[in-house]
Amino acid sequence: MMIAVLDKVRFVETDLMGVVHHSNYFRWFEMARVEYLRAGNVLLPELIAAGIVFPITDVQCKYRQSAHFDEMIRIEATLVEFSRAKMCFSYRVMRDMDNILLAEGSTQNVFTDKKGRVTRLPQIYFDRIDAVRQAENGGVV
Amino acid sequence: MMIAVLDKVRFVETDLMGVVHHSNYFRWFEMARVEYLRAGNVLLPELIAAGIVFPITDVQCKYRQSAHFDEMIRIEATLVEFSRAKMCFSYRVMRDMDNILLAEGSTQNVFTDKKGRVTRLPQIYFDRIDAVRQAENGGVV
Amino acid sequence: MMIAVLDKVRFVETDLMGVVHHSNYFRWFEMARVEYLRAGNVLLPELIAAGIVFPITDVQCKYRQSAHFDEMIRIEATLVEFSRAKMCFSYRVMRDMDNILLAEGSTQNVFTDKKGRVTRLPQIYFDRIDAVRQAENGGVV
Amino acid sequence: MMIAVLDKVRFVETDLMGVVHHSNYFRWFEMARVEYLRAGNVLLPELIAAGIVFPITDVQCKYRQSAHFDEMIRIEATLVEFSRAKMCFSYRVMRDMDNILLAEGSTQNVFTDKKGRVTRLPQIYFDRIDAVRQAENGGVV
Repeated sequence: MMIAVLDKVRFVETDLMGVVHHSNYFRWFEMARVEYLRAGNVLLPELIAAGIVFPITDVQCKYRQSAHFDEMIRIEATLVEFSRAKMCFSYRVMRDMDNILLAEGSTQNVFTDKKGRVTRLPQIYFDRIDAVRQAENGGVV
Repeated sequence: MMIAVLDKVRFVETDLMGVVHHSNYFRWFEMARVEYLRAGNVLLPELIAAGIVFPITDVQCKYRQSAHFDEMIRIEATLVEFSRAKMCFSYRVMRDMDNILLAEGSTQNVFTDKKGRVTRLPQIYFDRIDAVRQAENGGVV
Repeated sequence: MMIAVLDKVRFVETDLMGVVHHSNYFRWFEMARVEYLRAGNVLLPELIAAGIVFPITDVQCKYRQSAHFDEMIRIEATLVEFSRAKMCFSYRVMRDMDNILLAEGSTQNVFTDKKGRVTRLPQIYFDRIDAVRQAENGGVV
Repeated sequence: MMIAVLDKVRFVETDLMGVVHHSNYFRWFEMARVEYLRAGNVLLPELIAAGIVFPITDVQCKYRQSAHFDEMIRIEATLVEFSRAKMCFSYRVMRDMDNILLAEGSTQNVFTDKKGRVTRLPQIYFDRIDAVRQAENGGVV
């Protein structure tokens, strides 16, 4: 399923072009990814305490329309590829007022231990996240 | 040619995983892009004053190794595709001490007017930037 | 009256100490300040379009407890001094779960024109904001 | 003595007012503070590895003139109060080209262990930093 987060564009997220700086979209993607995992009752501090780290290895974003200060945006995250080795999300950022697509992108995380060695996500966490992926209907957080 | 920028990783650029947050690499790419244009004597405030805007439409990054607080990094920018309609840069971020590749990525800017309508970069700016592209040897800024 | 904003601490807002970087509190204060003005139906883009700029001239913050990733925080803004020349807000950041005070601070904005010359806030905007200040009961946005 | 850092204002540090967002000055202060400690051969990762944490408890800044994209700025740090319990720095941010004062501020760090309990900076680190404080002449890093 898809999970969506609503947020308002912050003043500090703009730059002198008068629109949101492109780097901020990856911070928005992250907020939606965090909520997706929470929907499976997986909290990042819990993973870290269990010795599991989840570095980003790949990101990509296409920008369609500029986002502006004070606009309400909706960030939608979908888990498109998932194994105990990695998780790949796709995202869409919409201007909530009129449902205009502002950007779409994707990210890939892998799982490692604290020394950066590739590891496998424990089955218990995999199952909880996979249950979210297989659920039919999403929701706005 | 290639233009490189040296900088030291800031404390604020790290996150609770103890390494640099992935979104910051796009801010580093931008610093190298700015210096590339400066090498052609093209300053962004001058472009903006001339009514030319240059929104980012596509970005991509692959992360190879983590960057850490206080490390000296070298950001290399190369203009790989260039016309009066758009400019595409590729980047490499290296740990300067041992020349280890940390990340590689790319960005695409298009040229528009202040209302967001697609425009063409004036020939005078194109020629100056293109001269940098055709020069043989780069330098570290 | 006081206006409060609720928000969740973002991953990117932490640093390698594992807590929120101190610079981010000023971004949170700003979110509450924006909502305070909105309560008076004063939107910053409207002010800017009217040629009114409102640079920050003074800020201060005392940090009591660290904020952590994923905690819900409540940012409270109160307009403590207000004239057509400047506005001074005080803020408190609370951990929403247990009402623990994390930080308290203040900011001062002055009003200028686009060339940075000191100006007076037009009476119409002053009155709208002052009505919020004089109202008895606040609310959480 | 005073330690100064030179840096160029980044595009991403601006906001839609066309000038640097006020929160970034605290990130600049931090860069100068890091260099000050480095002048005493004290590296923050080494302190952390030794179990010493140094949370910020107080900050303050007065803004005199706006900083703009691409300007070279000089951040000067002076250690104005120092004990094994805390260190207080004052800062000045100058536009390097014409030596105009842009902002001045201060910060206070205390020393704690990883659980946040107040501790004393070990004498060896104190002595190294204090030697910088007592030296006569500073330098630009």
